[in-house]
Amino acid sequence: MGSADALQVSIVGGSGYAGGELLRILLLHPRVRVRQVTSRRHAGLPVSLLHPNLRGLTDLAFVKPDEVGPCDLLFLGLPNGESMRGMDGWLARSPRIIDLGADFRLKTPEAWKTWYGTDHARPDLLGTFVYGVPELYADEIRSATRVAGPGCEAIVSILSLYPLVKTGLIKAGPVIIDAKMGSSQAGRAPSESSHHPERAGSVRSYKPTGHRHAAEIGQALAAAGVEPALHISATAIEMVRGILVTIHAFLDDPAVGEKDVWQAYRREYMGKPFVRIVKQSQGLYRYPEPKILQGTNFCEIGFEKDVRGGRLVVLGAIDNLVKGTAGNAVQCMNLMCGFPETLGLEFPGLHPV
Amino acid sequence: MGSADALQVSIVGGSGYAGGELLRILLLHPRVRVRQVTSRRHAGLPVSLLHPNLRGLTDLAFVKPDEVGPCDLLFLGLPNGESMRGMDGWLARSPRIIDLGADFRLKTPEAWKTWYGTDHARPDLLGTFVYGVPELYADEIRSATRVAGPGCEAIVSILSLYPLVKTGLIKAGPVIIDAKMGSSQAGRAPSESSHHPERAGSVRSYKPTGHRHAAEIGQALAAAGVEPALHISATAIEMVRGILVTIHAFLDDPAVGEKDVWQAYRREYMGKPFVRIVKQSQGLYRYPEPKILQGTNFCEIGFEKDVRGGRLVVLGAIDNLVKGTAGNAVQCMNLMCGFPETLGLEFPGLHPV
Amino acid sequence: MGSADALQVSIVGGSGYAGGELLRILLLHPRVRVRQVTSRRHAGLPVSLLHPNLRGLTDLAFVKPDEVGPCDLLFLGLPNGESMRGMDGWLARSPRIIDLGADFRLKTPEAWKTWYGTDHARPDLLGTFVYGVPELYADEIRSATRVAGPGCEAIVSILSLYPLVKTGLIKAGPVIIDAKMGSSQAGRAPSESSHHPERAGSVRSYKPTGHRHAAEIGQALAAAGVEPALHISATAIEMVRGILVTIHAFLDDPAVGEKDVWQAYRREYMGKPFVRIVKQSQGLYRYPEPKILQGTNFCEIGFEKDVRGGRLVVLGAIDNLVKGTAGNAVQCMNLMCGFPETLGLEFPGLHPV
Amino acid sequence: MGSADALQVSIVGGSGYAGGELLRILLLHPRVRVRQVTSRRHAGLPVSLLHPNLRGLTDLAFVKPDEVGPCDLLFLGLPNGESMRGMDGWLARSPRIIDLGADFRLKTPEAWKTWYGTDHARPDLLGTFVYGVPELYADEIRSATRVAGPGCEAIVSILSLYPLVKTGLIKAGPVIIDAKMGSSQAGRAPSESSHHPERAGSVRSYKPTGHRHAAEIGQALAAAGVEPALHISATAIEMVRGILVTIHAFLDDPAVGEKDVWQAYRREYMGKPFVRIVKQSQGLYRYPEPKILQGTNFCEIGFEKDVRGGRLVVLGAIDNLVKGTAGNAVQCMNLMCGFPETLGLEFPGLHPV
Repeated sequence: MGSADALQVSIVGGSGYAGGELLRILLLHPRVRVRQVTSRRHAGLPVSLLHPNLRGLTDLAFVKPDEVGPCDLLFLGLPNGESMRGMDGWLARSPRIIDLGADFRLKTPEAWKTWYGTDHARPDLLGTFVYGVPELYADEIRSATRVAGPGCEAIVSILSLYPLVKTGLIKAGPVIIDAKMGSSQAGRAPSESSHHPERAGSVRSYKPTGHRHAAEIGQALAAAGVEPALHISATAIEMVRGILVTIHAFLDDPAVGEKDVWQAYRREYMGKPFVRIVKQSQGLYRYPEPKILQGTNFCEIGFEKDVRGGRLVVLGAIDNLVKGTAGNAVQCMNLMCGFPETLGLEFPGLHPV
Repeated sequence: MGSADALQVSIVGGSGYAGGELLRILLLHPRVRVRQVTSRRHAGLPVSLLHPNLRGLTDLAFVKPDEVGPCDLLFLGLPNGESMRGMDGWLARSPRIIDLGADFRLKTPEAWKTWYGTDHARPDLLGTFVYGVPELYADEIRSATRVAGPGCEAIVSILSLYPLVKTGLIKAGPVIIDAKMGSSQAGRAPSESSHHPERAGSVRSYKPTGHRHAAEIGQALAAAGVEPALHISATAIEMVRGILVTIHAFLDDPAVGEKDVWQAYRREYMGKPFVRIVKQSQGLYRYPEPKILQGTNFCEIGFEKDVRGGRLVVLGAIDNLVKGTAGNAVQCMNLMCGFPETLGLEFPGLHPV
Repeated sequence: MGSADALQVSIVGGSGYAGGELLRILLLHPRVRVRQVTSRRHAGLPVSLLHPNLRGLTDLAFVKPDEVGPCDLLFLGLPNGESMRGMDGWLARSPRIIDLGADFRLKTPEAWKTWYGTDHARPDLLGTFVYGVPELYADEIRSATRVAGPGCEAIVSILSLYPLVKTGLIKAGPVIIDAKMGSSQAGRAPSESSHHPERAGSVRSYKPTGHRHAAEIGQALAAAGVEPALHISATAIEMVRGILVTIHAFLDDPAVGEKDVWQAYRREYMGKPFVRIVKQSQGLYRYPEPKILQGTNFCEIGFEKDVRGGRLVVLGAIDNLVKGTAGNAVQCMNLMCGFPETLGLEFPGLHPV
Repeated sequence: MGSADALQVSIVGGSGYAGGELLRILLLHPRVRVRQVTSRRHAGLPVSLLHPNLRGLTDLAFVKPDEVGPCDLLFLGLPNGESMRGMDGWLARSPRIIDLGADFRLKTPEAWKTWYGTDHARPDLLGTFVYGVPELYADEIRSATRVAGPGCEAIVSILSLYPLVKTGLIKAGPVIIDAKMGSSQAGRAPSESSHHPERAGSVRSYKPTGHRHAAEIGQALAAAGVEPALHISATAIEMVRGILVTIHAFLDDPAVGEKDVWQAYRREYMGKPFVRIVKQSQGLYRYPEPKILQGTNFCEIGFEKDVRGGRLVVLGAIDNLVKGTAGNAVQCMNLMCGFPETLGLEFPGLHPV
């Protein structure tokens, strides 16, 4: 990590949890050198003060955003609305941008306005970003210079549903995505809602309806076939990292069997290194389980057909900070830069944990 | 607790978690005296060895089931299939029976066979048990001598859905019940699946399809109106006590508003002491939350209508060992015996916890 | 709860966790009527918004501190230093005061200055408060009008050590108190340190040395005999409620056996309703366990003598918000007002939980 | 991983948690090829069924112990007493042995008998094993063919205390080791004690006195200087992986300052890649914290001197399955085989988690 011909990367907005994961992965990435990491609030402090797992691993200190110099690739981890407003400045500094935020995920300014409530500041740039799901858009990402990383619930839901929509196994809907979420997803800022005595052990329905990630998921599924009627509910549970989506869908043809479903996944994800189809007949982990994915870039997908009727339950699990954000961004970087897709992302996860 | 004219009760199968809760509640109940508690395996040992919260509170020791003498009311907490086989014996000992198990919940031997896979041993008795949901069948329970306590996921789902079906707000379905469950629900016996390093922090899809409680719920809703197409998926999360059901339903008339839904609940549950309609505009606990219901007999119900389309998300929360089992059984006992409905069940729950 | 001749009580500083526990206990106390509860920040809001376990149980809303009217007994739950500064005002409103804070625990202004770093504002009143450990000072509390409730680590440590010092089994020391603490002890205000992703699963040595409760403990033990050299270290663990103190002490005479230790405890605590000597030879709960004490006013005490040498390990467990604060204060109130000592404090705790 | 000239290793007793960690590390180790993994009970099953984090990573299946063929290095992960009885067989198969169990840790058969209660089956071999603490005995390990891996509480305690004893900062004692332990330490076998509803949230004093690891620690410290009077108490807390030891010691010269202590550590561990002296003045992680060490081979050591008197509180943290067992064994292997000491052990840990 850090030879002369290494890729020089910087991270804008690096004090948060996704920024910390990016750092963890990039500091050990054999083809990358991390140049700068920004934090308005913590400028001057060692990054390991906020990311204590990195102590001893790096002497980097946070710099202010305007101190960012030229680099080969820039990761942006900013609050919604900020990266679009500063985009000219970032483009001037780096030929390649990977934006972890929401600003460039949706394809039209209308969709942005509908879901985020504001006018999009740079509708002219919307078409220049590739939506960063490497399993589905590897070719586009390879030739892209700008990538918009998906939302964490979005990527696991899209990976779980895309093959079913593409093959027409699922058409009209309804498709219900019941997401169970860890606390890290809400970010680093303390609040009443994240206060340990309140958050510990809670089963909090924090977003029963109206979840914005529905927009991204719908957009991706519409491109695959028809967009089913999508419904998301998110529940915060006792967990720091991880998402499990329990997706309740209905087979267009109730006679379709599990083998057909399995083949739809198999065909799409054969050879994709970070998707694991989990369909075991025995063992405690015979369905996808976020617990064992902590720190990994894997997305586990499983399913079960209801013997009574045509409901298909699809289960998708990821680590929201890795495959849901930072790891997926590095996977995109690997593709953009011609590195092996899995480079730096080999950690297999722990058990038990 | 324990005057001469107290109700003499015994508990058959009292070493499990629901048995422990029954004991906790009954030992402090001002109109009850606990005579005997059985455990085949632990006969002779003090009950407080297995229920350590009761140490200092009682000197009772477990006896063998065949040592149970006559009493005024008998609680049965036995594995599925056992109470039906021994029912003649229990009926000979006590004029009143409250069965916590599944044996007498379904109304027909056919339904039993479909869901439990065996022939029912006592179809002649099926019609003699009242299904123990005090909020819906108080009059029947008051005059009953035999009550079958509902399954824990069933009671919270029924209470959440009944007013909507009865008023016709929900008709055809699909209705999807996504249940989040604590570990106590699986009982006291250790297993690989309950081993702490495996179970802690897991988000385990242990029953994506085929959950037996669908039978009870369907039966209760059919009686209220039409039985919608019901789908249950259960996920074990990091929690010891508690259930949250996230119910995804679709309004028959998508134009129906939240106020109409609220009135349907209000009309049904007005004056029912253990149902709390939770519909707050602020606060961390503005939706039902099992965390704060631990130890209480409350069922919290809330809901939210999706502004995009006719989906209604209904949230129901209980403590599986209290309103889901033991507390609800005591509530039934209170009605059967003419005691105030809330007697012995006043514990309001803890916060934070 | 609330007849005409009920004791009229108010709570100053009632939005915190200890205030919530006080409310929970007092609202169901058969001889008490809660008149007012103050919160500067939340005045006007229903108390159940902050204490959601009380929703449906009370319509009380917070008032400002200066709105507090005359009452029979006033509980003060204020930050250190505040109750001493406003004491004249509180005394004018109520003939009886129970202060949950630290201001009147130490007997001399010098001790206050040493441990809290400021001059005591009311040294003249220090001698007028009784230190509220009902198990040790019941007579004084019965005739007191002012009581200072002990710190939560202090009361469990004092109850664990007092009989050993009083009987001379322990003399010189060192006595090491290794306290394991839940997160509720740090109060309701969110902070980085209490942010769920940071606090969950942590084993945080937040106070290896210099713990202020050493002052109270030393003062109480000195009064019992000689004050041993006391050392406290506190570690925050994954738990919301509860304290376990593991006390490492050394028997003055290494030949003393467990039976002698047992008798020292037995003699002191015989008939004391809230102390449970836990010394079992079998069972999972054969040592004190805070897990099963949640919501209860019990203090469990156990011990084990090292067969190699004269070390005695003493274990003490409480719920920091009940026996550690609010429940103990109600127990003091019961004594002060001539009520049965256990009134309103009967909750036996839950298992499992 | 797996070229022709790779080191061929096998694992005897590979179905447990430490065996799983060994596999995780060795499968990704660039100089190693894992030949065989044994499990009597699970022979024939894929290893990934028991170690689900390895699914997709390996096709290995468990074999029976007697099927183990010749290899370059053999790891033994067997119950106490088993490796000594079968040692001739293992020695016949491999020129190098790393035993993770207790059998060859103590130097004399008398010490074994005292602490483990049985006669040692192979006292003749006791002197042929090097005690595997790479930070202290690197040279011996480099030239060793047989290594006995330390107990998990032992290694973190030894690393925390050794420099203080060696430099004479600590002499007579008492030294009290208060260990907080995760549930994985008790192994994979389900039991009442590990049953989730009982174990979750518990603060269980499972070994207040009599902990066997005292023998190893005493032996190591005696070799460094004088053996202080050692006392261990272990408490199981809500955590799967990790140990924090809070060590209460007394400086021989109370006037010694923190700087001297710091230098003692610094001198000993300078350049040791897996020891981190943690002594920060700010930040949430200013003391050692097992939470952020999960999956890593680090041992964090910190300390604080009590301004009142000569107590020194030393804090040591590790992941019990990595630095406490499997990772430390691989570190020994690296030394024995001339590989870079950190090879395969680079994972820096996650935050938050």
